[in-house]
Amino acid sequence: MQEKEISQAVVSRLPRYLRYLGELKEKGVERVSSQELSQLMNVTASQIRQDFNNFGGFGQQGYGYNVEYLYTEISKILGLDREYNFIIIGAGNLGRALGNYLNFERRGFIFKGIFDKDESLVGKEVRGEKIRLISELEDFLKNNTVDIAVLTIPKVGAVGLVDVLVDNGIKAIWNFAHVDLDVPDGVQVENVHLSESLMKLSYKLSRYERENK
Amino acid sequence: MQEKEISQAVVSRLPRYLRYLGELKEKGVERVSSQELSQLMNVTASQIRQDFNNFGGFGQQGYGYNVEYLYTEISKILGLDREYNFIIIGAGNLGRALGNYLNFERRGFIFKGIFDKDESLVGKEVRGEKIRLISELEDFLKNNTVDIAVLTIPKVGAVGLVDVLVDNGIKAIWNFAHVDLDVPDGVQVENVHLSESLMKLSYKLSRYERENK
Repeated sequence: MQEKEISQAVVSRLPRYLRYLGELKEKGVERVSSQELSQLMNVTASQIRQDFNNFGGFGQQGYGYNVEYLYTEISKILGLDREYNFIIIGAGNLGRALGNYLNFERRGFIFKGIFDKDESLVGKEVRGEKIRLISELEDFLKNNTVDIAVLTIPKVGAVGLVDVLVDNGIKAIWNFAHVDLDVPDGVQVENVHLSESLMKLSYKLSRYERENK
Repeated sequence: MQEKEISQAVVSRLPRYLRYLGELKEKGVERVSSQELSQLMNVTASQIRQDFNNFGGFGQQGYGYNVEYLYTEISKILGLDREYNFIIIGAGNLGRALGNYLNFERRGFIFKGIFDKDESLVGKEVRGEKIRLISELEDFLKNNTVDIAVLTIPKVGAVGLVDVLVDNGIKAIWNFAHVDLDVPDGVQVENVHLSESLMKLSYKLSRYERENK
């Protein structure tokens, strides 16, 4: 069934709503108005209402939103009402950092294994999982249910691995390799290109300095 | 001097243009048309022309763009025609990963130091820089020119450090802490909230699965 098309911009804002709602929940706040949320999050109340209207509005605005309900509904929209198994390809510092993030597990992302081509890493552990050789990847995927592959390897390796991953049931790739991956329809990709993010920062910095000379 | 306002969406696309132009340059390609770039990058040629028109168009379209010129101009717009000194706060796996990225240095981002509150890390090295105690940060900033601080520490620590950073000359923060930082005007922030990126992936995945049951 085709859902109503939600813009990428709206989806990008949902995790931030969830973060603020989580903090309100922790503080025991039960209801919040779009005005209060607006001040907290530094966006306009009308933007919040517009965003929420994409999902039916989440309840009566006059009384404010029920924090718990809103949190639960946004979690469901983001697919956080179930668990995902993930593996990491690349056991360098970045791969190990991602394997060790306990926050991911709290959100339902379960770390199942980590692979590298470097034989000297084999047997070392990342949060209880032994680092495996990349040559074992295909067998591992055949014998384990894995939803998400996280790629923290150079771009050449990443491109070469996509077929193995997709042919063996991987449905989503979280891609830190500095390349756009070519995947079949139905395989989801989210890119984190760190140097591109750093360039956005240098853009802001140099632009500000040009304007304020 | 106020420059023409460029939308955030356009700026976000510039690093990707630069990446493709860099690859063309490496292959020795001298000219590229918006149609060719469009096919390579999987965006419409009209989007490319519109984006480039924000910066005066970068030359005659009939003959295609000069790759070297376009690459140089986009680099300048992104502020990559100069060097930036950066330090990292947080010497965990993520901080160490970022310190070790040689790509950043190639782009003009020079790694100057790394700090942590964990005394057991002091003296260990990350790419030639000894890990320093966070209590030395203020002195370090007074005695060294640092443009960018990279925060790879938990959110409580990050919020508490902003004043020290800003008061001691930091002009830009690359923030991996899962919190929105409150900085004075003129201080630039770029956030990389990894768990929010992962949630965008689970959104796509669960949405696809709902639609294709």
